[in-house]
Amino acid sequence: MSEVAVPGYRYGDEKLPVSPVPLQELDKLKAAVLFGEADEAALRQAWEVLRDQVEAVLDVWYDFVGSHEHLVAYFSTPEGEPIAAYLAAVRPRFGKWIEDTCTRPYDATWLSYQEEIAVRHTPAKKNQTDQVPSVPNVSMRYLVAFIYPITATIRPFLSAGGHSDEQVEAMHQAWFKAVTLQVALWTRPYAPEGW
Amino acid sequence: MSEVAVPGYRYGDEKLPVSPVPLQELDKLKAAVLFGEADEAALRQAWEVLRDQVEAVLDVWYDFVGSHEHLVAYFSTPEGEPIAAYLAAVRPRFGKWIEDTCTRPYDATWLSYQEEIAVRHTPAKKNQTDQVPSVPNVSMRYLVAFIYPITATIRPFLSAGGHSDEQVEAMHQAWFKAVTLQVALWTRPYAPEGW
Repeated sequence: MSEVAVPGYRYGDEKLPVSPVPLQELDKLKAAVLFGEADEAALRQAWEVLRDQVEAVLDVWYDFVGSHEHLVAYFSTPEGEPIAAYLAAVRPRFGKWIEDTCTRPYDATWLSYQEEIAVRHTPAKKNQTDQVPSVPNVSMRYLVAFIYPITATIRPFLSAGGHSDEQVEAMHQAWFKAVTLQVALWTRPYAPEGW
Repeated sequence: MSEVAVPGYRYGDEKLPVSPVPLQELDKLKAAVLFGEADEAALRQAWEVLRDQVEAVLDVWYDFVGSHEHLVAYFSTPEGEPIAAYLAAVRPRFGKWIEDTCTRPYDATWLSYQEEIAVRHTPAKKNQTDQVPSVPNVSMRYLVAFIYPITATIRPFLSAGGHSDEQVEAMHQAWFKAVTLQVALWTRPYAPEGW
């Protein structure tokens, strides 16, 4: 996927502002989800397993969202009509997100794009990237709720690489930590004071 | 635990207001975390395994919080001095929370107490229950982050009941869903508009 330019994908874009979350706070959050070097290594390995399965993972996630009216609503007009072009435009960025989750160092560059992703869920920036007439906000509760399906559904894909049960478990736990960490970051713009 | 009155524990208290989260919204959140009747049954079974291990579970969680200055800070004075009486007062409610997570129907009564728990993390109600001079807010990011340790650390306790790997896995997934669902609910008062 790395070779193709993905519209709206801005990891590493120097024009992005510095994240309001300092690196010291990221370190504290990592400690809270028990994320360490072994998890980084497990995520690198996970990407070797997932890289040829990204479209299949996205199929599962899109099927899940598409099968629930209250979830596809966030990709729909305020009247509830799904916007096919919006769903299609987000998809390659979702693929890059899988890759970034597994392969990027969680540093200041990564934090800047995390904040950009966060704000794109909120009225400050939703719909702008893809210029779509969708609802103005992704309800924060669903960012949190999605920790479950995004974690649970990746497991069979991680198992498909011929690794031992122990290695698959290590990759899966690292993924769970990484997803939880990112959702914690993405909730910031919803409640900057209480965050 | 059920036989002992726990100060500040208010599940079922008819004086609690009706939750601002309607039951229809709870159903949608349950769907988002794939929570169903099989999970309810698995949680009932989990309680049979956990009921005699509650103090040991709490020991693990308290050790985890206590070993991180930035986590025990929420049980401390603004100057950073841990408040032993506060830590002690919360502990039996934390035990009841394990029991309630496993055994209560997730209905309007449960939602009312979920909202009460939610608000007790925020400046509107933190410290009041136990009349302690602690910091005024639990940063929302740590509610989200805690989904990981609260889920991961329960696994060995669920394995201790002599059930099959498949049964332990079902109990663990149900627990993960239940924790995620509750944290999604607890974030509401931090961002009522965007929630």
